[in-house]
Amino acid sequence: MARDSLVVGVIGGGQLAGMLWEAALPLALDLRVLARRPDDPVVGLLPDAQVGDCNDPGTLRRFAAGCDVVTVEHELVEPMVLETLAATTAVRPGPAVLAVVIDKAEQRRRLRGLGIPLPPHLIAVGASQLIEAGHELGWPVVAKVARGGYDGRGVEFVDGPEDMVALARRVPDDAVFVVEPHLALDGEIAVQVVRGADGALVTYPVVRTVQTDGICRFVTAPAAIDERLRRQAAAIAGRIAEDLGVIGVLAVELFVVNGTLVVNELAARPHNTGHYTIEACTTSQFANHLRAVCGLPLGAPDLMVPAAAMVNIIASTTDPLDRRGALAHPAAQVHLYGKAPRPGRKVGHVTVCGADPDEALDHARRAVADLETAGATA
Amino acid sequence: MARDSLVVGVIGGGQLAGMLWEAALPLALDLRVLARRPDDPVVGLLPDAQVGDCNDPGTLRRFAAGCDVVTVEHELVEPMVLETLAATTAVRPGPAVLAVVIDKAEQRRRLRGLGIPLPPHLIAVGASQLIEAGHELGWPVVAKVARGGYDGRGVEFVDGPEDMVALARRVPDDAVFVVEPHLALDGEIAVQVVRGADGALVTYPVVRTVQTDGICRFVTAPAAIDERLRRQAAAIAGRIAEDLGVIGVLAVELFVVNGTLVVNELAARPHNTGHYTIEACTTSQFANHLRAVCGLPLGAPDLMVPAAAMVNIIASTTDPLDRRGALAHPAAQVHLYGKAPRPGRKVGHVTVCGADPDEALDHARRAVADLETAGATA
Repeated sequence: MARDSLVVGVIGGGQLAGMLWEAALPLALDLRVLARRPDDPVVGLLPDAQVGDCNDPGTLRRFAAGCDVVTVEHELVEPMVLETLAATTAVRPGPAVLAVVIDKAEQRRRLRGLGIPLPPHLIAVGASQLIEAGHELGWPVVAKVARGGYDGRGVEFVDGPEDMVALARRVPDDAVFVVEPHLALDGEIAVQVVRGADGALVTYPVVRTVQTDGICRFVTAPAAIDERLRRQAAAIAGRIAEDLGVIGVLAVELFVVNGTLVVNELAARPHNTGHYTIEACTTSQFANHLRAVCGLPLGAPDLMVPAAAMVNIIASTTDPLDRRGALAHPAAQVHLYGKAPRPGRKVGHVTVCGADPDEALDHARRAVADLETAGATA
Repeated sequence: MARDSLVVGVIGGGQLAGMLWEAALPLALDLRVLARRPDDPVVGLLPDAQVGDCNDPGTLRRFAAGCDVVTVEHELVEPMVLETLAATTAVRPGPAVLAVVIDKAEQRRRLRGLGIPLPPHLIAVGASQLIEAGHELGWPVVAKVARGGYDGRGVEFVDGPEDMVALARRVPDDAVFVVEPHLALDGEIAVQVVRGADGALVTYPVVRTVQTDGICRFVTAPAAIDERLRRQAAAIAGRIAEDLGVIGVLAVELFVVNGTLVVNELAARPHNTGHYTIEACTTSQFANHLRAVCGLPLGAPDLMVPAAAMVNIIASTTDPLDRRGALAHPAAQVHLYGKAPRPGRKVGHVTVCGADPDEALDHARRAVADLETAGATA
């Protein structure tokens, strides 16, 4: 087998592309990336990383020309552009899937149509609809921009009509929002499923996630929830993957509210809540995403260890990180993304595997804390 | 932290360099390689892989100029050349260690000096000494060329004086051999230790290895041997690492003969008998080798799973491998090196983790067997 016998093109050059590259190496898959900026983390890690605008049809066409299949690691690409590309190149997941997942409003419409349990919400465009939504749902509300938000950006907690007017002024007139009541959550969970090109489906363990300010802080696996909810979460994720016809990873984030599940958000790519799979599961989400988009058989998703915890490293300043601080914890499995630190930016993560999720979490947090003194916080 | 804040140069561009690269990525270490040939596996996986003769001092000096530390992944580099390099660049392990490990005769002299248990052996140069050694040890014997052999090349089973004369004719007059009786082994085991730049030592589990025709076929971890032998093997490896002043991985291969241990061979680099550590241990041998040579703290070497087995994929023809065949086994963790198949060439390996080493072995062998139809055998 020549290493370049199968060429996967990844739109995006962030840490997800970097971890796809790590997974591609032992599979002898050739990876090419189309990064947005020359300082994206994956540029410099691949022999021929390309930098360009993925929404420029010519740039994308030239990039895809050398690829057997193209996949995406972010939601910043226009479905129309992918639709055009799909006429000549395999795009996995397909443009129709990506059109749903890149738009939170579209996600809600589609999931509602499937009868998937959702939080109470309204779709609003423009100041008057936003205010109306707040009145209807009852203040305070959470307003989530339908497109382009990530890691807490684009998610606003709005106390009343005046704040909502201020928010509406900051965004284009045609910006679409999903507006929700500020729910009292029992907790948050997530689950990844991977659907192969042949329709085969594998389901990763259901995990507990903790987010603050809209950014994932940590994940523990398996989630300490009752078996009924666990099965229900897995079934919901499988049903969505099948209905949308996803090929690759589908990550589903759910709220637990009064003992019941509602789906918060979808991503059709490897997801932060699945990073723990790199060490803890037989096949990582990255390896299975590649297997799926390449039409190869999927690997087992099961936990190899009793429990695992993943803690994000989130920079608090622009100071360089102290790699040595985290590495001084022998059980810490450290992933640094090679990104320049900026306050609030995810620059790495630490996984710890062990007998108990809470012990693993405690250990991982201590390892991340030992990067803190040099500019990062968990 | 900038990804290129620490640059590790690797002499060699084979699969070990490839697996070092996989381990370097999450540590945000920059890796550069000096490969021997343009078709070496790692060329094409790094942005700036260099191809050249590592024994040409100018080539090596230019390669090392951009590196914070230089390490090696094969034994084909001349100690004198490294000695010169070490005057200006950190070389880890140091030239004195490499001078011992690249030469099987030198290994035996050094280990004998340490009082380490060894198989009966004689060092022989030229036909007459070779024949003398055979007579003294008693035919049949095994003659191992002291330098340049690998994967069974350079190891000859010699039945009597005539075969030995034929062997002597095929090699240079000054070729040095280690000559041993053909021992009846209870079995073979191996252990990796890693010694940090600060002298800290971590010890991987003792594993069982099975070799045929001088090439490693499979490894199971942990080795099913009694605790006394396990401790003794670990102690021997640690003692050698400390005495030689190794920085990085030291792999020690041992024979079990009549219930006692003798050291067969050393390697001061990540080793085939430690590939299982990638998935089965908290920190892989590759990650710990990088940590050691960079002067970073070492990670825990412990098994995260009850047991693991690693089976080499050894090509039997030049036909391309069937990646899909191995990937169809969901529990198989498949590593393909991107090497062109040739009979007898290691082109990949499969690891399976599980509850029991023999079950894991059986599973891994079946996965490798499913590559067989397309040109490889285990």
